[in-house]
Amino acid sequence: MQADSIDTGTMRNGGNGELTRALARFVADTQWQDLPAAVRSEAKRALVNYFAVALAGSHDPTLDRAVCGYGRFRADDNSTIVGRSERTDMLNAAALNAMSANVYDFDDTHIPTIIHPTAPVAAALFALAESHAMRGDALLLAFVLGVEVECRIGNAVSPEHYQRGWHITSTCGVFGAAAAVSKARGLGEEEIVWALGNASAQTGGLVETLGTMSKSISVGNAARNGLLSALLAEDGFSGPDAPLEGERGFLRVTASKPDWHALTQALGREWALLNNTYKPYPCGVVLNPVIDACLDLRRDARWSIDDIEQVELTGHPLLRERTDRPGVRTGRESQVSAQHAVAVVLSRGKAGLEEFSDAAVADPSLRALAGRLRFVDDASWPVEAAQVSIVLRSGERHSHRVHAARGSLAAPLANVELADKLQRLTTFGRSGIDAQPLVDRLWKFEHEPDAAAVVRLTRARGPD
Amino acid sequence: MQADSIDTGTMRNGGNGELTRALARFVADTQWQDLPAAVRSEAKRALVNYFAVALAGSHDPTLDRAVCGYGRFRADDNSTIVGRSERTDMLNAAALNAMSANVYDFDDTHIPTIIHPTAPVAAALFALAESHAMRGDALLLAFVLGVEVECRIGNAVSPEHYQRGWHITSTCGVFGAAAAVSKARGLGEEEIVWALGNASAQTGGLVETLGTMSKSISVGNAARNGLLSALLAEDGFSGPDAPLEGERGFLRVTASKPDWHALTQALGREWALLNNTYKPYPCGVVLNPVIDACLDLRRDARWSIDDIEQVELTGHPLLRERTDRPGVRTGRESQVSAQHAVAVVLSRGKAGLEEFSDAAVADPSLRALAGRLRFVDDASWPVEAAQVSIVLRSGERHSHRVHAARGSLAAPLANVELADKLQRLTTFGRSGIDAQPLVDRLWKFEHEPDAAAVVRLTRARGPD
Repeated sequence: MQADSIDTGTMRNGGNGELTRALARFVADTQWQDLPAAVRSEAKRALVNYFAVALAGSHDPTLDRAVCGYGRFRADDNSTIVGRSERTDMLNAAALNAMSANVYDFDDTHIPTIIHPTAPVAAALFALAESHAMRGDALLLAFVLGVEVECRIGNAVSPEHYQRGWHITSTCGVFGAAAAVSKARGLGEEEIVWALGNASAQTGGLVETLGTMSKSISVGNAARNGLLSALLAEDGFSGPDAPLEGERGFLRVTASKPDWHALTQALGREWALLNNTYKPYPCGVVLNPVIDACLDLRRDARWSIDDIEQVELTGHPLLRERTDRPGVRTGRESQVSAQHAVAVVLSRGKAGLEEFSDAAVADPSLRALAGRLRFVDDASWPVEAAQVSIVLRSGERHSHRVHAARGSLAAPLANVELADKLQRLTTFGRSGIDAQPLVDRLWKFEHEPDAAAVVRLTRARGPD
Repeated sequence: MQADSIDTGTMRNGGNGELTRALARFVADTQWQDLPAAVRSEAKRALVNYFAVALAGSHDPTLDRAVCGYGRFRADDNSTIVGRSERTDMLNAAALNAMSANVYDFDDTHIPTIIHPTAPVAAALFALAESHAMRGDALLLAFVLGVEVECRIGNAVSPEHYQRGWHITSTCGVFGAAAAVSKARGLGEEEIVWALGNASAQTGGLVETLGTMSKSISVGNAARNGLLSALLAEDGFSGPDAPLEGERGFLRVTASKPDWHALTQALGREWALLNNTYKPYPCGVVLNPVIDACLDLRRDARWSIDDIEQVELTGHPLLRERTDRPGVRTGRESQVSAQHAVAVVLSRGKAGLEEFSDAAVADPSLRALAGRLRFVDDASWPVEAAQVSIVLRSGERHSHRVHAARGSLAAPLANVELADKLQRLTTFGRSGIDAQPLVDRLWKFEHEPDAAAVVRLTRARGPD
């Protein structure tokens, strides 16, 4: 039976487990040779981006506290904490590395769920790989399948789930990590159903926690608990038949009208990873075209900042509604402020984490320029587009219009740009590791005989 | 300002954190001398019941697998696993002991939320006490406050929360454990708000998992993650201001019309523990009056089982709807089967875990008697009542009617009955520990200089 031939109409009267089982069977049966070349390639791109953001976040204050707090409860030192010199055990490594990769919200974004799919899945798999030898292609296959399960569940509960207040990266990530680890451990269909059931008992994370350290706990749990769910299932720890579609299963409990079809339709023919995007800038995605335009204006500049009398920002009203934030006080707030973005990018010609930090926000010269921004609403514009115009004191006017921002599905980052992101964020994270050997190994990761060797490249030298 | 003077009307426009803060302040400020004598006494009763059910459950197959699986990730051997010879670390002990105490659903029940309040809170506190010296009265105070927070949050989301599919013991238990450990560690108001925020990121557990091993994971997580939430907060791991009442906070996300007043009204004057009940039998509570009646009929019996032609069970139609289950095949199913309950109790004059086990279900003589049960619906009866009538082949008829079952709020178990439950369940659990010193210490627990000494009495002798 083809997975997508399941009569989801019967779901109205209570799920019998057929959908969960179809997903489990797909995970159990799919082999490396079943993956299209584009999917294999995207998996490697996602991992390059994963190490970039994890190396950036690894010394954030949230991580400093978590490494210390979780470190008191580590069983061994077999596993790497990306970008740091401390070691920890498998479960803690899964949690801490997922936290690092997501702490700046600079990681990847699945469209349209806005799940950050890689952090929970990759962190669980690399932690596993350091204790259980695994080839690169085996890890990539497990990663692809984990992301597939995670994003299909996300599709089934979107958009209501996130709108209601569920932090979808956390709530769906635990299923993705469970599925991925199940594949990596070679579990059968029945055990994968149990793994998803064990994960369903551990799904959590609230949008209310965004902007606080608490958020990182749920992202870490998604990786840790997904990994644990699969290991327990492997040991015979059994769960319900229909953790997803059951009468009191995850889908119905967290969405009032789940899209049952999203779980299994075109399974093996359409791939969630091909709807994955990577952020070029550490900002809300609606600012991407604005930043692109400012970078282009600055590149060709024959004017200086002092010449600017006004900046006009033209776009869909949603752009203004989401980003009209003058007078921001923290780096975090600046990441969703058009005023700050325009000022800092026109002034510095860069848009990295330094430009959206507490220090950048405190720069008085940027505040002056930020005060000269004017929004021009135009509901006929698509939200993916924006135009920035600078009006000089001389009366001269320079404009740049962006139709599809870098990093969108229409204009994805090139491999060389992802490698550059990894280089820049490694520098930002101050771990002292050398990014070049890491990126070289990742681009040919399917030929890597020992997946763990790659993660060991991300260990920082200790004080000793 | 009195906690219950807060204008909860403003909650309609987004919570500002005042309710969470009021709960946190209550936890921070309340002292042992503020607890009424009845509350202190009830706390000790809850702990006697806790050790009874944990000692019963400690060798269930779910626990065997969890002790093994979780044991691979233990940082040290400082903490006791109740009823077992293995040791583990603080976080794992919290998880495993909460699992044991709840695995048979034979633990306590808060009315009307049906939260099993003690397992997550007590397991977290005793695990803490084995690493951080604590007096008995300090543990009791923290326990009372943890249960208060847990059940008030439960009241605020009930009944919709459980009906929708949230396993309320797990979802609210994590807050209770976080509050209790916060108190035991002496955290201030701000840190307790953070602890509750860290807990809000870790709330989960689905009704769909009931009857499977997966359920135990979420109950264990409630204790483990609540404990971790408080320890992280103590180290400065901060959370949102309004994890409970915020626009995307726990209450709104998991209930469409939360009862905001339930969080703080009569705080310090009404106590959740006084609405706590203890099960005399390992069955669905609607069967309690039925079992009471059968025990009474059997006690005075001048008939033998073979004389019985028919058994009539009279009660509210809900009793039939919930318990009309002929032909059950597992011990677990038998716990909600009137047919099995009537047959086994009339035959054996007992209603313990042995009587609701797989072995009891397989007894052919019980099946014959179970087949002679007839329900008589009477909607005028309260659900707390039931009447059992046996009709003998001679035509003779014996009836017993129960108005309020043992173990209900109207007819609570006496201390001697709780102590007897502890004795019986210790025997059932086959840990080989001596229950008498344990129960003696618990009845005077407020004078105990070292709370951990009591939990060490529950260590089983190892094979070495």
